[in-house]
Amino acid sequence: MPASKRHPETSLTPRRAATRDRLIDAAHEVFAERGFHGASVEDLCERAGFTRGAFYSNFSSKDDLVLEISQRYSERLLAGVAQVAARDDLTPAEVVQAVLTAWTSDRRERRLWWLLQTEFTLHAVRDSAAGRSWAKQQAGVRTSLARLVEETAARRGLTLPVSADDFARAAMALAAAGTGQHLLEPRSQPDGALAARVLRVLLGAQAG
Amino acid sequence: MPASKRHPETSLTPRRAATRDRLIDAAHEVFAERGFHGASVEDLCERAGFTRGAFYSNFSSKDDLVLEISQRYSERLLAGVAQVAARDDLTPAEVVQAVLTAWTSDRRERRLWWLLQTEFTLHAVRDSAAGRSWAKQQAGVRTSLARLVEETAARRGLTLPVSADDFARAAMALAAAGTGQHLLEPRSQPDGALAARVLRVLLGAQAG
Repeated sequence: MPASKRHPETSLTPRRAATRDRLIDAAHEVFAERGFHGASVEDLCERAGFTRGAFYSNFSSKDDLVLEISQRYSERLLAGVAQVAARDDLTPAEVVQAVLTAWTSDRRERRLWWLLQTEFTLHAVRDSAAGRSWAKQQAGVRTSLARLVEETAARRGLTLPVSADDFARAAMALAAAGTGQHLLEPRSQPDGALAARVLRVLLGAQAG
Repeated sequence: MPASKRHPETSLTPRRAATRDRLIDAAHEVFAERGFHGASVEDLCERAGFTRGAFYSNFSSKDDLVLEISQRYSERLLAGVAQVAARDDLTPAEVVQAVLTAWTSDRRERRLWWLLQTEFTLHAVRDSAAGRSWAKQQAGVRTSLARLVEETAARRGLTLPVSADDFARAAMALAAAGTGQHLLEPRSQPDGALAARVLRVLLGAQAG
C-alpha cells in the first residue's frame, strides 16, 4: 500500500514522496553492493544525494527503511498473485506455476531480495525491536496471502489438505529456500522449481 | 562420520582429535556470542587456549571449521532419523513427528544452529569458494536424507507424491524456516510444527 495510506496522519506531499522513493532506490543499490550490515545510513544518504536530516525526517532508522522496502515488495507480489489467481482459465497448479515464474523472472532483484530478507531476518532474531516489527510485517503478508489462497480455493471448490495459513507459510518458506538453493547451485535448481513441485501437492488431489 | 574417517590419509592421533574437538567446542561458544562474521580465528584460538598454528594445522580456514561443525551436526541428525525411521510401530506421520521433536528438543542448540547455518549460507552465496563447498556438503546431507526416505517408503509400501529428493529438500527448507519463524514468534509457532503439518501431506494419503 502506498506510504500515504500507511501514514494517514501525515499525508505525503509529492516532494516528500519523491524523497522517500529516491532514498529507497539508493538503498537497493547500496544493499546490493555492501549488504544490510555493511551499509550505513551515511552511505545511503550519500548515494541518494540527501543529508542525514532528510533521511531521518522520512525514516526513523535503517530498519524502518528495510521494512518499507519489504512492504512495497510484498504488496507488488500480492497484487501479482491476486491477478493470476483470478484467471479461471488456469488450473490451480498453473496458478502456482505462473506466480512463481513471475516472481523469479528478475534474477537480479530476486538475489537482492533474498540477501536482504535473509540478513534482516538474522538481525531480527538478534534484536528484539527489529524482531517485533519484522514478525508483525511478515504476519501481515502471510495473512494477505492466506486470504487470497482461501478465496481462490473456495471459488474453485478446492479443499486444501493444509490450512490456508500453513499453505502461505509453506509457500514463503519454500520460495525463499528454493532461491537460496538456486543461488548456490544455479544449474541444478531453477529458481521456483522446488516450490512449484511441492505446492502442487499442497493444493490437493483435485488441483489438476 | 568421525574426522578420522573423513581423512583416511592422515588418520588422527587421539591428541589431534582432542585438539579438533576443543576448537569445535570453542567455536560453538564464540559463534553463539558474536556470530560467524563477528568471530575471528584469533577469538576461537583464544577461547580454546591454542595458538593460530594449532588452528591451521587442523583447519584450513574458519569456513573449513564451519563445514566440519555442519558435517558433525548433520551426521548426528541423520543417525537419529535412521533410528526413528526403523521403528515399524510408528506410522510415517509419527516418524516425521518424532524426528522433528527430537531435532527441536534442545532450543539453545537449534537457535545456534539456525544462526550459524543462515549466516554461512549468506556467506556462501557471496563467496564462490565457500559456495562450492557448502553446496557440496548440503547436497551430501540431502542425498543421505533422500536415501533414508526412499528406503523407509519402500519398506512400508508407500508411494510419495513427490520425489525423495524433493521430500528431503522440502524437509530441510521447512525445518529451517520453521525455526526462523519460531525464533521470531516463539509463542505462536512451536519449532517444528509447520514442517510436521506439511510433511505429513507430502507422505501421501496412505501415511496415517
